[in-house]
Amino acid sequence: MILELADLRIQPGKQAEFDAAIQQGVRDVISKAKGFLGFQVQKCIETPERYVLMIRWETLENHTVDFRQSEAFATWRGIVGPFFAQPPQVEHFQLLADA
Amino acid sequence: MILELADLRIQPGKQAEFDAAIQQGVRDVISKAKGFLGFQVQKCIETPERYVLMIRWETLENHTVDFRQSEAFATWRGIVGPFFAQPPQVEHFQLLADA
Repeated sequence: MILELADLRIQPGKQAEFDAAIQQGVRDVISKAKGFLGFQVQKCIETPERYVLMIRWETLENHTVDFRQSEAFATWRGIVGPFFAQPPQVEHFQLLADA
Repeated sequence: MILELADLRIQPGKQAEFDAAIQQGVRDVISKAKGFLGFQVQKCIETPERYVLMIRWETLENHTVDFRQSEAFATWRGIVGPFFAQPPQVEHFQLLADA
């Protein structure tokens, strides 16, 4: 299992619309992708235009190849992309420890 | 419940030592703090010097006031600080949605 962490910055004042759009995009598109295991959308307190989307995938390639090279990726970006103030910063992580 | 997300960059080549140090610091110091609910340490795949520490607190003030103004904060920084290549970037988040 790997974690995708996407750091998102949206246009000021669009929070309410984006809250709805990102939930729709996850529900209708990403949650149906191969290897999707779960997600969180976190809203930043100090920087209201910042969101962190965390998606758990079975493998790195489920995200970087299977999803990103699918038509679903374009559909997803069509839903959330118009809100972005800059390109998302996306990297992947492996769990070291938790409790 | 709020999420602290700390984006950490450590010195190259120190990963094995830092893996042990951050787990020790959470176990011995942070996990005993008022309002601590849980944590994850995530290691970046693309950028080996990057770690994301996520801590769940009952309230924002449990982190920003109770912990940061305690002696425990200095103890924690004494354990992990020597590995940092730059100051941690820390912000706090509220959950919008998950599954």
